Amino acid sequence: MSRKAIIAVIGAGSATTADVASARELGRSIAERGWILVTGGRDAGVMKAANEGAKEVEGSITIGILPNPDIPVCPAVDVPIITDLGEARNNVIVLSADITIACSINDPGTASEVALALKAKKPVILLGAGMSALDFFGTMGKGLIHVAASALEACQMAEQLSKRRF
Amino acid sequence: MSRKAIIAVIGAGSATTADVASARELGRSIAERGWILVTGGRDAGVMKAANEGAKEVEGSITIGILPNPDIPVCPAVDVPIITDLGEARNNVIVLSADITIACSINDPGTASEVALALKAKKPVILLGAGMSALDFFGTMGKGLIHVAASALEACQMAEQLSKRRF
Amino acid sequence: MSRKAIIAVIGAGSATTADVASARELGRSIAERGWILVTGGRDAGVMKAANEGAKEVEGSITIGILPNPDIPVCPAVDVPIITDLGEARNNVIVLSADITIACSINDPGTASEVALALKAKKPVILLGAGMSALDFFGTMGKGLIHVAASALEACQMAEQLSKRRF
Amino acid sequence: MSRKAIIAVIGAGSATTADVASARELGRSIAERGWILVTGGRDAGVMKAANEGAKEVEGSITIGILPNPDIPVCPAVDVPIITDLGEARNNVIVLSADITIACSINDPGTASEVALALKAKKPVILLGAGMSALDFFGTMGKGLIHVAASALEACQMAEQLSKRRF
Repeated sequence: MSRKAIIAVIGAGSATTADVASARELGRSIAERGWILVTGGRDAGVMKAANEGAKEVEGSITIGILPNPDIPVCPAVDVPIITDLGEARNNVIVLSADITIACSINDPGTASEVALALKAKKPVILLGAGMSALDFFGTMGKGLIHVAASALEACQMAEQLSKRRF
Repeated sequence: MSRKAIIAVIGAGSATTADVASARELGRSIAERGWILVTGGRDAGVMKAANEGAKEVEGSITIGILPNPDIPVCPAVDVPIITDLGEARNNVIVLSADITIACSINDPGTASEVALALKAKKPVILLGAGMSALDFFGTMGKGLIHVAASALEACQMAEQLSKRRF
Repeated sequence: MSRKAIIAVIGAGSATTADVASARELGRSIAERGWILVTGGRDAGVMKAANEGAKEVEGSITIGILPNPDIPVCPAVDVPIITDLGEARNNVIVLSADITIACSINDPGTASEVALALKAKKPVILLGAGMSALDFFGTMGKGLIHVAASALEACQMAEQLSKRRF
Repeated sequence: MSRKAIIAVIGAGSATTADVASARELGRSIAERGWILVTGGRDAGVMKAANEGAKEVEGSITIGILPNPDIPVCPAVDVPIITDLGEARNNVIVLSADITIACSINDPGTASEVALALKAKKPVILLGAGMSALDFFGTMGKGLIHVAASALEACQMAEQLSKRRF
């Protein structure tokens, strides 16, 4: 019996329309592959969209790693994990995921997650990252940072990476 | 759409034969009721038995909240959440569960979990607790502490409690 | 160069007059011995009293390990450590202290701290503990639990214990 | 009675000679101003140098926020806080500091700390940061990110910033 791959989708709570669309597609594609989706669990932005995308697929499993007990949980999260760790819960997200996919990195929360994933030597796929993010994390995370041009490509990369790892 | 109840089963990594048998029965009964099982995720004692019991039921979901990245995960855990919090992960277990069932409390880890659950005003069902534990936590946790004589009774109590809560 | 002993004083935020008096005396005695005081840092009950007692002594150092950024910090705390861990900060308190002194254990927060200290194999001195607490933790923490009848005796015990450890 | 400012110095455990020299000067300058130094507490790189610099000043106070109980603590740390949080302790460092000074940001641990400080709306002074770091965090942390050309300038900036805050 082998465990299903666990894929984190991270990104801002206040996200652009494009990021929300990508996140929804990521969530659905992850679920279609039979993988488990992990997010920060909040009912906003990238987190909400990814979970809703995953729940379009029957039998999907969505895990939300919440910062605090009193924050609204996305209804599309099957299992809310209430950490009460504030932003330190970001470390729990990336440590629990086999692969982390970042849907844009233009907010400090997502930046901290990418940095913590690299610190833990975990692979990260960047989608929609700006030049300065690619520059900064590309150099720092040599061998761990992968850049995708679309949600589809991000999932194909995750597929390749997870073959290597399992 | 309503979320499934999340029930934690807690207890020692080195448990007696009786506790292991109870934990297995608890895990199975929790899964049979369509609830999600949360444990400390280790491949030992009460945690291992509860997860194995749950996985006897098709479609069950088992979540393990692990203290560290390098600790052996019970193979019957579907989703390992790697907290890297050491024993502080005990707080994540009880905060994430709607109801916590303790399979004996004769070790400090389980005692800390019961105390943290009470601090968070969460209901706890004690199974196989000794006199001094019943005395100590019974007084401290008035209205939150429930005492069961068997795994079956613990699950029936959880059923009653979860009706009140959802 | 050897480091000063670090002594935690723990107890309820809403404490009895007797506990507050003991905590104040403990704080002062710890500071008089040149030790560093660690508490949960809140501006209430045992925490407040212990810190105020310590600050009666010139050159004393008081560290407060706070649960959240928005909780009022006791003004007698020299160094507030803001954990944003909620009750999981209890583990940080007992891990950071060489010895923990509990000023009564009749609330779940203090009970969780004593349990977490035992789990980490750290010595705990109980002051003003009721029969059921002595019974429960006495059995569980054999060799680690010490019982004092007064603040003075607790400090003398801490002195003996710290000689053994340093 | 007002509390002393708490200044964090962050940077890699394996640092360049230049960073180590800057960190030592930062530690000494912070202590000379009567401020409390907070670091990650390890006996290596920027952390070690900053603490040693501070302890050249009589009456200085150095706090180390350690990731785990078994990691070597820098002997120049007066008060080791043992978090057992792994890299999540980075959040405790930046939340506890009034101002954070980063001595280069070329490793993921430091990058996560800068990101977490920005997330918490805390001011960060960058010293010796490369172009891509300045670019990335400069845009993200508008109004919170300050750039210093030397340890002296960093301390002068911290002085200005702490006047605004207290």
